[in-house]
Amino acid sequence: MSNRMWGGRFASGPAEIMEEINASIGFDKRLAPQDIRGSLAHVAMLGETGILPAEDVAAISAGLKTVQAEIESGQLAFRRELEDIHMNVESRLTEIVGPAAGRLHTARSRNDQVATDMKLWVRDTLDSLDLQAADLQRALAEKARAHAATVMPGFTHLQSAQPVTFGHHLLAYVEMLGRDRGRLADARARLNECPLGAAALAGTSFPIDRHATAAALGFDRPTANSLDSVADRDFALEALAAAAICAVHLSRFAEELVVWTSAQFGFVRLSDGFTTGSSIMPQKRNPDAAELVRAKAGRVIGALSGLLIVMKGLPLAYSKDMQEDKEGTFDALQTLSLCLAAMTGMVRDLEPVAETLARAAGSGYATATDLADWLVRELGLPFRDAHHVTGRLVGAASARGVGLEELSLSEMQAAEPRITQAVYAVLGVGNSVTSRTSYGGTAPDNVRAQADRWLAQLGRGKG
Amino acid sequence: MSNRMWGGRFASGPAEIMEEINASIGFDKRLAPQDIRGSLAHVAMLGETGILPAEDVAAISAGLKTVQAEIESGQLAFRRELEDIHMNVESRLTEIVGPAAGRLHTARSRNDQVATDMKLWVRDTLDSLDLQAADLQRALAEKARAHAATVMPGFTHLQSAQPVTFGHHLLAYVEMLGRDRGRLADARARLNECPLGAAALAGTSFPIDRHATAAALGFDRPTANSLDSVADRDFALEALAAAAICAVHLSRFAEELVVWTSAQFGFVRLSDGFTTGSSIMPQKRNPDAAELVRAKAGRVIGALSGLLIVMKGLPLAYSKDMQEDKEGTFDALQTLSLCLAAMTGMVRDLEPVAETLARAAGSGYATATDLADWLVRELGLPFRDAHHVTGRLVGAASARGVGLEELSLSEMQAAEPRITQAVYAVLGVGNSVTSRTSYGGTAPDNVRAQADRWLAQLGRGKG
Amino acid sequence: MSNRMWGGRFASGPAEIMEEINASIGFDKRLAPQDIRGSLAHVAMLGETGILPAEDVAAISAGLKTVQAEIESGQLAFRRELEDIHMNVESRLTEIVGPAAGRLHTARSRNDQVATDMKLWVRDTLDSLDLQAADLQRALAEKARAHAATVMPGFTHLQSAQPVTFGHHLLAYVEMLGRDRGRLADARARLNECPLGAAALAGTSFPIDRHATAAALGFDRPTANSLDSVADRDFALEALAAAAICAVHLSRFAEELVVWTSAQFGFVRLSDGFTTGSSIMPQKRNPDAAELVRAKAGRVIGALSGLLIVMKGLPLAYSKDMQEDKEGTFDALQTLSLCLAAMTGMVRDLEPVAETLARAAGSGYATATDLADWLVRELGLPFRDAHHVTGRLVGAASARGVGLEELSLSEMQAAEPRITQAVYAVLGVGNSVTSRTSYGGTAPDNVRAQADRWLAQLGRGKG
Amino acid sequence: MSNRMWGGRFASGPAEIMEEINASIGFDKRLAPQDIRGSLAHVAMLGETGILPAEDVAAISAGLKTVQAEIESGQLAFRRELEDIHMNVESRLTEIVGPAAGRLHTARSRNDQVATDMKLWVRDTLDSLDLQAADLQRALAEKARAHAATVMPGFTHLQSAQPVTFGHHLLAYVEMLGRDRGRLADARARLNECPLGAAALAGTSFPIDRHATAAALGFDRPTANSLDSVADRDFALEALAAAAICAVHLSRFAEELVVWTSAQFGFVRLSDGFTTGSSIMPQKRNPDAAELVRAKAGRVIGALSGLLIVMKGLPLAYSKDMQEDKEGTFDALQTLSLCLAAMTGMVRDLEPVAETLARAAGSGYATATDLADWLVRELGLPFRDAHHVTGRLVGAASARGVGLEELSLSEMQAAEPRITQAVYAVLGVGNSVTSRTSYGGTAPDNVRAQADRWLAQLGRGKG
Repeated sequence: MSNRMWGGRFASGPAEIMEEINASIGFDKRLAPQDIRGSLAHVAMLGETGILPAEDVAAISAGLKTVQAEIESGQLAFRRELEDIHMNVESRLTEIVGPAAGRLHTARSRNDQVATDMKLWVRDTLDSLDLQAADLQRALAEKARAHAATVMPGFTHLQSAQPVTFGHHLLAYVEMLGRDRGRLADARARLNECPLGAAALAGTSFPIDRHATAAALGFDRPTANSLDSVADRDFALEALAAAAICAVHLSRFAEELVVWTSAQFGFVRLSDGFTTGSSIMPQKRNPDAAELVRAKAGRVIGALSGLLIVMKGLPLAYSKDMQEDKEGTFDALQTLSLCLAAMTGMVRDLEPVAETLARAAGSGYATATDLADWLVRELGLPFRDAHHVTGRLVGAASARGVGLEELSLSEMQAAEPRITQAVYAVLGVGNSVTSRTSYGGTAPDNVRAQADRWLAQLGRGKG
Repeated sequence: MSNRMWGGRFASGPAEIMEEINASIGFDKRLAPQDIRGSLAHVAMLGETGILPAEDVAAISAGLKTVQAEIESGQLAFRRELEDIHMNVESRLTEIVGPAAGRLHTARSRNDQVATDMKLWVRDTLDSLDLQAADLQRALAEKARAHAATVMPGFTHLQSAQPVTFGHHLLAYVEMLGRDRGRLADARARLNECPLGAAALAGTSFPIDRHATAAALGFDRPTANSLDSVADRDFALEALAAAAICAVHLSRFAEELVVWTSAQFGFVRLSDGFTTGSSIMPQKRNPDAAELVRAKAGRVIGALSGLLIVMKGLPLAYSKDMQEDKEGTFDALQTLSLCLAAMTGMVRDLEPVAETLARAAGSGYATATDLADWLVRELGLPFRDAHHVTGRLVGAASARGVGLEELSLSEMQAAEPRITQAVYAVLGVGNSVTSRTSYGGTAPDNVRAQADRWLAQLGRGKG
Repeated sequence: MSNRMWGGRFASGPAEIMEEINASIGFDKRLAPQDIRGSLAHVAMLGETGILPAEDVAAISAGLKTVQAEIESGQLAFRRELEDIHMNVESRLTEIVGPAAGRLHTARSRNDQVATDMKLWVRDTLDSLDLQAADLQRALAEKARAHAATVMPGFTHLQSAQPVTFGHHLLAYVEMLGRDRGRLADARARLNECPLGAAALAGTSFPIDRHATAAALGFDRPTANSLDSVADRDFALEALAAAAICAVHLSRFAEELVVWTSAQFGFVRLSDGFTTGSSIMPQKRNPDAAELVRAKAGRVIGALSGLLIVMKGLPLAYSKDMQEDKEGTFDALQTLSLCLAAMTGMVRDLEPVAETLARAAGSGYATATDLADWLVRELGLPFRDAHHVTGRLVGAASARGVGLEELSLSEMQAAEPRITQAVYAVLGVGNSVTSRTSYGGTAPDNVRAQADRWLAQLGRGKG
Repeated sequence: MSNRMWGGRFASGPAEIMEEINASIGFDKRLAPQDIRGSLAHVAMLGETGILPAEDVAAISAGLKTVQAEIESGQLAFRRELEDIHMNVESRLTEIVGPAAGRLHTARSRNDQVATDMKLWVRDTLDSLDLQAADLQRALAEKARAHAATVMPGFTHLQSAQPVTFGHHLLAYVEMLGRDRGRLADARARLNECPLGAAALAGTSFPIDRHATAAALGFDRPTANSLDSVADRDFALEALAAAAICAVHLSRFAEELVVWTSAQFGFVRLSDGFTTGSSIMPQKRNPDAAELVRAKAGRVIGALSGLLIVMKGLPLAYSKDMQEDKEGTFDALQTLSLCLAAMTGMVRDLEPVAETLARAAGSGYATATDLADWLVRELGLPFRDAHHVTGRLVGAASARGVGLEELSLSEMQAAEPRITQAVYAVLGVGNSVTSRTSYGGTAPDNVRAQADRWLAQLGRGKG
């Protein structure tokens, strides 16, 4: 209840402080499934290589499964004085199978054990994040397909620059998520070497088969250097770096949602599902979920910094500092998972307000560059002259308070006599976007093709 | 048990995701004491200003105390669907006192309420951290007093440079902690303006008395601008910045403890209380607590970065992003508290190994600068010439494999004829430290005086 | 021209690499004025204490002034093989005054010298930043005074919540800058202890007068512990922390400027001075300066993180790692200076678009809370009932597509019969802001009073 | 000379401030080679597609080459009022080839141009860093090969745990660098899509051939979405993340060098090339280069944080904030380059002190786990019992002040009667390391095999 701290004038004794700072069971209990998976693979290998007799292997394996069941059902009460998940599991195993439990630790130490557990957890989580990111891509691509031709202003500096389509805008995030998934996949591939069997730090003299345990746990191969095996936390750092970049991507879309749902923009609508309201201001829809997604990028970046700092300047092989790898990694990757889920929900939920978008796309002489390009392309004007002519026409339209397309042909020709009726085709917003057919451009056919390409790829189960 | 994430192909619905990302009761329940304290002050003021009748004030106050008692005893089950601590308290209050509970929220909003709660929590925590830092200063100063004359090598680049005393080294940390406490005090003084009464963001038309609530809650004054009141999280940022610098100080001493307790240095001994051992290597004392203190600086720095990132670029006044201020601040300040407690325990626990320190202090021609200074001071040699002579003498001693003090006077005079017997007084380690009597220098009398000054100050209750 | 890196297959030799990584003259030349100021104080003290004869003091002082003049006029070419500013100055001094130059280094080392130089530079810069921050406060307060009654929407979640005034909004930043200046002042006060005379790390046996050099250099006192004196970089860390928080404040206003100058908001106008345009889209005003101010917060936060990381886990006393304190500190503090200058210029430059602001302030039933408060205050309705009635009235207005103030009294009374004509007074935006007279509230008279208070304080030279 | 800041009471005008904050030529001039390479590819494509006539293409190409030559020779003076490298190049080109220069900008904008330039620069730099990292791997593997059997203590918690070999220790870093190079390669592969032709943000209506420019510039393909093309800075973020992790690896070895070169450890010797000395303390070798490498990890992490912060929450497509991508990226990647070069030099330079290492490896009962493993393996003792027996034997040896191998067989048998003479084979340090033949273990044959594998791979030009 109170925010009592340790110490002060009435400090608790060394034992309590040491247990408080040292014990990790409060957070590493989350590694229980990975810890037991690793132990099952290890004991099976000890049997196959003849290091342990079959009956010990059988007893230990059965005992581990019992412990697993007890943990899953919430029956097992973890004890802080046993420090960590490894000792909690081993202690319970000893109660179940007796002293033979002690043989499980043959040719192993907590150093390689915890590295294996963490790698398995990070790997599982990368897989899960990849599925979520693919889901978000799918939601974006589907919405993009539906709005391949819905025009909206394309912004630079939050100033309307050229018309684009809503679908095109969404597909930009599909590209970002594609790179994010590439980073997740690369991180997964790079971490997929098994540290089990590195023992405390030097390897072991027992005739273990590290290739067998690596294979049993789904690793591509065992790690090649025992010191590195227990001293390495690259896999967590790389996962956090990939997560931080992905979180930044999500924060960008989140910012857009906050801006777009403001009364002044009114570009999209989010339902009650992802907003909070006011009992007396019914039009108010606070985009809480988007704001939180935007904010949480800070948390993920902080976790990345935090672990880089922990690892900086740490001598080999294992130092207790490395216990600090867990809470930040757990929290940051789960934060990203939550952000992906929330963003997927919001993307499915949101509806663009087509009329508002179209009106905004057409205002501000957003097709002036189309006119200039037409002068270059059709009349062969040098770029600079084309800009000069366009500037005069925008000035004339602005003075009359009309759009470029509302100038008469003679008004046009006053600025440049060779202009023809054909120019009007490039002045409309719809024509502008349709004309941008260069590869990667915003032309609706391009957008549909890209959305289809992504959906086909995502649908084939690759994403 | 599993590390299931949201989403994947089988995503939960919007409602669940929204509740997951939006609800803060999981962590802001820690603010319950501050929340109720704030509400008691607010309702008392509403009574004194005549905004609420006395009977409502009495009922609400009594009800709040009941809620407080229920929370303290663990009776009240917080409900996630009520989102945060404010609504959980208010909901229970309504059950207890009926609709009158609703009047508590007159002239207030959750925006000024949560800012007040957080300020109270941070203020309480700064006070607690200050007591802990003072305790650590006291432990250091006492140990320094006891070892004011215990010589050890003074390092630059982890190379022995000049002898200092163990007490002098410890007092360097007392100085750092003195500045840390100055920062905590400044942060406390600066945050001590009360946001309560800023309401949602614009102030209120009710005739409230903000000076009264400010005084009742121990604030120096109310905040002067209602928008700033609800948009400001400087107090958390500044507390985190002070905490990060303090954590860096602790990490420096922690690094020294790790290095000093290595077999190669063997400078200090830590008892079992703050080390972990090995059942078969009895001489092994892993300095786990020191390693964890060293590492946790990363976590605190990460939290500081995280919140700076959250606040960067946030428009006024309140945005939901600001809910992300809590977990990082809670965790980082409690982490610092734990580190201070652990370090205080270690300082009380540690014993310098005087012989090893003395031997190390005397090796490596650590008094060569004393010799050079003597040549300058006593013989009037220019600095450069003095260095030249010293270099030759060190070379001679090194060639013979002896210390400078083991060179004969004639050997000395071969390098510089004016050298006299008096030179030997500066060549001993003890004489070296004794000679450094400049203000702030390592002479044992200086060290004793500084330790006494600190202990007097700390004992007077100022620290 | 090329981005050639060191190494590759054709690495340069050790000497070149070592010089490249080790030499600091490329950036610490900026400390030349501080270095010479420190040396002048040191040599004067050496004279006064009789450690150096008067003629040496005179020669060295004159020589230092010559070097200073040469540096100021750009005459002196710094040489990288002399590594740093101290050796470059000393080398040139030796050319000018001969071997006596070597006596300057009596009772001093590069360790205390560089700490003194950096403290002087940071102190000078904090003073300069304080003046700039005061200038920005003045610009904001003046603009706030002029627009004390210019209504605008007050936002939460970037959704219009309640009307405020433009002046009130600007004064929120004056408050933030007030706290920033408090932090700068506290940092300055805390750093103002002179490390000169700590020598290499242990103090000195020369009878120096550290109080004299401290006073001569404007320090409050000498530092109290020689190890801490050369190992401490708190002053840079604290300055960077204060700078990071200030930069975050500026980034918030910068974000608002970017959003407000969008076509959709159109809340303020920035002139050509602080925007960039397009030759063919004359209405386009890219708020480049605001965007850069927003971005540069990232750079300052990065520098703070960077130096915290450098210092983390560093054993006492001096390590070469600490040379990395310079570039980040120089860059970050100058970045903040540039941001303050740019923001001051933008504040002076910007003009609110009063009609747009007023229209936005009045839309969205932004005075619904005023209505609810009126029902509570005047009719004694419980808060919950008041919200219910207000909700029904907003619903009625919304159905008719009108504002609350356009409902007839009978329509009002259909929801709550006791409503009287007096209610209309609280429904207008102007009345809403005028009514918020609570301390710190947005009422124009409040805003004027606060602006006047600040301008008086700033004008009196205190700011 | 002075550290004058902008502003203060005598601020410079808007024009100067704006130019100061806005112009990037001061740092983006480094992109000149990339900028011209991109323009040459673009104009060639404009010719091939018939958008520009051949004579314009020829004139522009020749002109660009002239500009390039002028820049390389230092002839071209960059002008700040032209803002950036693109305008400086274009302006000079116009002077050389006349108005036709303006046609170069057809179907292009500065947005896609700068993205292309930066990608090319980062790609070039990643390639260069990869070569340097391979060089460092080679230096480490060669040294490891030479010291495959040089025993040293293997540390956990900086406490001697089990003997390893010096070569094995070095190979741990070869593994880390292998992963680093994997990350560099993945970053390179992922960035290798060409943004050129995305134009301002929407693509273009000119019939450009983006596949041609992509191929000409060595990209695998053009980017698929024009908005993403100009809004994306993932390539810089990912390069910085890879650099930060690599810098952390280097900082770990740097810390070891600092500790190992201390008088207390004395494990390795560094020559004058990478240390700095003292004129009067000849034994002092400050490991400055190692300290700087250790420190510079902070700078790289700070740059990574900085850019993540800049990009967080940025709406599409281009915002001026993104100009802040350059300085941090340039500085951080060049810092890593310098650290790799320095570390390669130090690795080549360092010599292990074999006797000291061997003595340290054998002290502290470092083979106690070998004894326990022997009891398990040879006598079939359960792990727990083996530990118990070992503990008693260590206790006996410790009481007598001797090593385990100095206990007599009868003393051994007093603790466990079945112990035979064979046990002595595992008690020696040499036997201990030789016995650790598990894959990845420290046995000298393993170390030689791993070193050979790496050298073969590195030699084959793959690394």
